[in-house]
Amino acid sequence: MNIETKIAKFTKPLYLESGRILEPWQIIYETYGELNEDKSNAILITHALSGSHHAAGWYEGDRKPGWWDGLIGDSKAIDTTKYFVICTNVIGSCFGSTGPMSPIYPGSNERYRLKFPVITIKDMVKAQKILLDSLGIKKLKAVVGGSMGGMQALRFGVDFPGFIERIIPIATTYQTRPYVIAINKSMIEAIRADCEFKNGNYEIGTELKGLAVARMIGYLNYISPKTFDKKFGREYVKTDGMFELFGRFQVESYLEYNGAMFPKWFDALSYIYLLKAISLFDIGRGFNSLDEAFSNIKDKLFLISFSGDTLFFPEEMREIKKYMDKVGGRCQYYEIDSDYGHDSFLVEIDKFSDLISDILKGEMDARF
Amino acid sequence: MNIETKIAKFTKPLYLESGRILEPWQIIYETYGELNEDKSNAILITHALSGSHHAAGWYEGDRKPGWWDGLIGDSKAIDTTKYFVICTNVIGSCFGSTGPMSPIYPGSNERYRLKFPVITIKDMVKAQKILLDSLGIKKLKAVVGGSMGGMQALRFGVDFPGFIERIIPIATTYQTRPYVIAINKSMIEAIRADCEFKNGNYEIGTELKGLAVARMIGYLNYISPKTFDKKFGREYVKTDGMFELFGRFQVESYLEYNGAMFPKWFDALSYIYLLKAISLFDIGRGFNSLDEAFSNIKDKLFLISFSGDTLFFPEEMREIKKYMDKVGGRCQYYEIDSDYGHDSFLVEIDKFSDLISDILKGEMDARF
Repeated sequence: MNIETKIAKFTKPLYLESGRILEPWQIIYETYGELNEDKSNAILITHALSGSHHAAGWYEGDRKPGWWDGLIGDSKAIDTTKYFVICTNVIGSCFGSTGPMSPIYPGSNERYRLKFPVITIKDMVKAQKILLDSLGIKKLKAVVGGSMGGMQALRFGVDFPGFIERIIPIATTYQTRPYVIAINKSMIEAIRADCEFKNGNYEIGTELKGLAVARMIGYLNYISPKTFDKKFGREYVKTDGMFELFGRFQVESYLEYNGAMFPKWFDALSYIYLLKAISLFDIGRGFNSLDEAFSNIKDKLFLISFSGDTLFFPEEMREIKKYMDKVGGRCQYYEIDSDYGHDSFLVEIDKFSDLISDILKGEMDARF
Repeated sequence: MNIETKIAKFTKPLYLESGRILEPWQIIYETYGELNEDKSNAILITHALSGSHHAAGWYEGDRKPGWWDGLIGDSKAIDTTKYFVICTNVIGSCFGSTGPMSPIYPGSNERYRLKFPVITIKDMVKAQKILLDSLGIKKLKAVVGGSMGGMQALRFGVDFPGFIERIIPIATTYQTRPYVIAINKSMIEAIRADCEFKNGNYEIGTELKGLAVARMIGYLNYISPKTFDKKFGREYVKTDGMFELFGRFQVESYLEYNGAMFPKWFDALSYIYLLKAISLFDIGRGFNSLDEAFSNIKDKLFLISFSGDTLFFPEEMREIKKYMDKVGGRCQYYEIDSDYGHDSFLVEIDKFSDLISDILKGEMDARF
């Protein structure tokens, strides 16, 4: 499988949902496989909060492959011998697409930081659509994504009806619930509470402890309480004293390590902006009702949730199915039995890769 | 109902589970009702993480009564016309019992801070038992507490068999699970990440933002996702802009407010020490097995859990019942139907106060 990393730069303004404008702006993306002659074999992969455009394959020196490598590749469920797969880094993120740490105008040493506009899922999708247009892609075979990526998939379906053959949102919702908004809030405030954050004017390269704490908070909901039991139990770090105040259970050591690593590879402002985008997500915004929003989805919608997801509950995706049934859309709902938790969409690929493969081959279409 | 606040000072050392010693030490407590002549009508109330000895009644100028006022009072479930009710502030806390901000020796200006020993639930209970002994109480009618208070109730039963007629742990566990340890860890790290925390040497009166963040993290698990839905929905603060980065949903405003208030009335070091005590809680420590620990409970055990508790799951209390059945103990398990979440034990008193009343009157004893 060949991987290519590309940057698309746009000089035409990107009009955002907030009324603000990004100009110029750019998107970094990877592609896998070959675009066929009539440009009809493209699949878009949309990433989650801390994800990137590096969805599959290995670069020299990598210790691990792209985040959905188990799903995307030659003869895998998303088969790169058949499909041309694209994964972009969303605007607002920190891996090369325009975000809060981008220069405020070309050549400037000043970065946007808190002057960066609030980005919504709608904006992310709009930017991706402009990229796809620029590549001459008139229709996507599919859009597939989990969590925040699932929000993009759903939004794509609503905003560009008829553009995607098969929409596959995974482990997501149609309207972010107050519980998740509250989690996001506590992460945002953990970052803001760090005195090194300096209201967004932190030194480049500062490993913000507040961002580490935010990551720890995130982990509390990425795996389920049962997975915590299985993974860690009450094992204590051997070299730590039980009655030392900062002695650690294994689970604490795990959180500490993953927390401390996070600021090395993710930017605090991007994290805040993306959390805000997730909290703001509401498929009904801009419509008179949710019915109206869902009736806009004209393409085939395949919903995949995980029974043990404690962040975006299966119930939320079942509600999408109800709306779609009500407005007469084509929608199938699949619930994968798993108590792993929200991160199932990244970790338990074996449990749903055949389903994705079947959906893409059109084998589930007969069920409509 | 008469309320009295008292302080008991002890000069004999308190030998802690860690091997360390507190000397001298003190406990602040409140009592309601009158101790009868043969001192046989006492009930001990044990408080949760952010609770205090002020469990019931009003002081002049109070805006709200004690935290279990709905349950404790004249002719209430815990009837102060019949019982002499005692609630102590646990050692390690910050309302007057010996804790990390206590002077390191009498008359010293130096406070323990991080030199304070790690406290366990066993230590809290031991201190309370010494207090009860000093009051001449030979046997308790009951010990009743929720969450960390439930841990104390259970510990009391195991450590002082035959001392309590009826043990009533509510919304708690017998062994803190890694999920809860992880939540505690992220709260502890939120405090430590605050540069004003200064490794425990913060200025008295500093309202640590890290402590505010810790409180926000706590809230995520005190009420259930469903309660978040009911209480807040996706209402946005009217005066905030939807596309302002720090514009707030109502739920965010709620967390911000409660977070910001917390450092005004709770101490950061006490919070860390109590979280540590909760994480360390394991009824089996010091025994060869859990069976052995539970077989130590000789008194009547009444367990009350809430179906929607997402912090200490009902399953954990059902396991206590299984252990007790296995070792031939007297144990009844009650699960209150409620989707409110962990805080049910504080908020939904109407749902279980009759049960507590019946238990105390001995009306459930026939079921053994």
